[in-house]
Amino acid sequence: MRATLMYGADDVRVEDVADPKIHQPTDAVVRIVLSCICGSDLWPYKSLAPTDRPRQMGHEFLGVVEETGSEVRSLRPGDVVVAPFVYSDNTCAYCREGLQTSCVHGGQWGLNGVDGGQGQATRVPHADGTLVKLPVGEDSELLPDLLTLSDVLCTGYHAALTAGVRPGDSVTVIGDGAVGLGAVISAKLLGAEQIILMGRHQVRTDLGRDFGATDVVADRGEEGIARVRELTGGEGTRRVLECVGLKDAIVQSFGVVRAGGTISRVGAPQYPEVPFGFGDFLRNITLTGGVAPARAYIEELMPHILDGSIHPGRVFDRTLSLESIADGYRAMNERTNLKVAVRP
Amino acid sequence: MRATLMYGADDVRVEDVADPKIHQPTDAVVRIVLSCICGSDLWPYKSLAPTDRPRQMGHEFLGVVEETGSEVRSLRPGDVVVAPFVYSDNTCAYCREGLQTSCVHGGQWGLNGVDGGQGQATRVPHADGTLVKLPVGEDSELLPDLLTLSDVLCTGYHAALTAGVRPGDSVTVIGDGAVGLGAVISAKLLGAEQIILMGRHQVRTDLGRDFGATDVVADRGEEGIARVRELTGGEGTRRVLECVGLKDAIVQSFGVVRAGGTISRVGAPQYPEVPFGFGDFLRNITLTGGVAPARAYIEELMPHILDGSIHPGRVFDRTLSLESIADGYRAMNERTNLKVAVRP
Repeated sequence: MRATLMYGADDVRVEDVADPKIHQPTDAVVRIVLSCICGSDLWPYKSLAPTDRPRQMGHEFLGVVEETGSEVRSLRPGDVVVAPFVYSDNTCAYCREGLQTSCVHGGQWGLNGVDGGQGQATRVPHADGTLVKLPVGEDSELLPDLLTLSDVLCTGYHAALTAGVRPGDSVTVIGDGAVGLGAVISAKLLGAEQIILMGRHQVRTDLGRDFGATDVVADRGEEGIARVRELTGGEGTRRVLECVGLKDAIVQSFGVVRAGGTISRVGAPQYPEVPFGFGDFLRNITLTGGVAPARAYIEELMPHILDGSIHPGRVFDRTLSLESIADGYRAMNERTNLKVAVRP
Repeated sequence: MRATLMYGADDVRVEDVADPKIHQPTDAVVRIVLSCICGSDLWPYKSLAPTDRPRQMGHEFLGVVEETGSEVRSLRPGDVVVAPFVYSDNTCAYCREGLQTSCVHGGQWGLNGVDGGQGQATRVPHADGTLVKLPVGEDSELLPDLLTLSDVLCTGYHAALTAGVRPGDSVTVIGDGAVGLGAVISAKLLGAEQIILMGRHQVRTDLGRDFGATDVVADRGEEGIARVRELTGGEGTRRVLECVGLKDAIVQSFGVVRAGGTISRVGAPQYPEVPFGFGDFLRNITLTGGVAPARAYIEELMPHILDGSIHPGRVFDRTLSLESIADGYRAMNERTNLKVAVRP
């Protein structure tokens, strides 16, 4: 089959790899119908040292079950399914607590004999635990919306939920990428009254307004902080959803959070230390979040997509064939596209 | 009256200062019956540059109301009262949320014309909001226990509460000082099943066992982390109460916290940045806590003292007269005493 391989920074190729097969009785093989490129795929795209042992890319996908192992109970060939961005057994102590990213049997796509999502098919370990059946056909117009359950919508939801967003709350969302936009949708779902979106790409912040942002702040740094404070009676917002991962973004988060408030960080931190000393200790700030256990939220969020009340799939502003995926990496890296979907 | 003044590191003197008087109609004047030295008083004791404008010390005290301003409604002369370690109006938006440390009219003892607690008397701003009446006489044997409501018990409770300690939880308490011991009492009050106390002063950790610690770990660093993991099936505890404030202690906290767990930090951080990068992001660790709004917890914790079910006053291992307070600073700094009470 064909799959996306990264040989180094700026070097993405589509090549032939071995067809996936059942290895364990708990495996399934899924033919991929729709996949996409993640903001986190851009980190190696910017920095990976050239290698002749390429990475198999992609961790967001939905597709059709082709084959199941002998112990798979809940799925059968022909089922349309979505996968979260890590696999998990969904039965261990961590999974039962809703922390499937810490599953004792879990792992990442594209490693250790498991294919990535940016290809024609993949073996899915712990298929009963990992995959969630979608009540639509593989030609459904809802597929782009449903694909966001794989990562960006659930990641935005994790930010909003762990930040403790409640009806009537004031929320700042930092970052107008797909996760930030998913966080806007999620803050609104949880009843936030004021949602301030910090971002400077007008196409994206306009989409953010459609999704529920009540204010947009394009300024950064001290000016951005001052603007958010102006919008909140000088105090900042009770919840801050940090959807970027750069040090500037976490510094900004502390600047816009109200005393007693919570910052939830779902942008993978590209820095080892958080500036969080005596001043913010005196203000009783909480820092929470982390990598989102998407699997925990898929069933909860899916109904909002199926009934048409949210359209997170609008974050996809381009769809490419698998053979053209390198164009998608380039476009996302140059920020000419927000998020690129891929049809194998 | 006599009061404790700090002129620099290692230079504590008891001298005459002006008697406190009512300045505002919301003030009260309190004659101090029992006070004490705080671990945080040792920071300037170690480091304050010599000055001829000394600091008036002390922020934990109980006493008797001598005089009230014309707008004070809930108190009258003769009432025995305890004060939290900052004053607050207890009516602003932050106070109503239980964050009296962020009170818009609040402030610190010993500054801006308000006396410190280590003296014979003090003016109490916002007396109705700040002071809590004690249903005991000024000769009660419970005074040392009740004095811990001023700071150390409430600070330990803030750690346990914000960490989310629930019945059956596993908890690590880092630090065997008076706050750490208050955290042990608090974790037990909230129903923790396993309470691991990390500390190396056996007299203190023995008291910790009396207060409810189920295990004591004297090792530090990697050995200490390994030992806590051994005691918790390799996983660490769900809650970590960091009651020290040094960088080593926060590093240790991340080492002993279980994936998905919460660290609450109530030791005032003596470092500007927290080592909290990608690894602990992947484990979904939360960092919360901050300076404790003691005022929020006094009424809640007092009944446990009055009915004799907890004895937090056991943290006082020495009582001195005010004139001898410098000996108390020296002893606490040299760790020959855990916490020193002072009778003016």
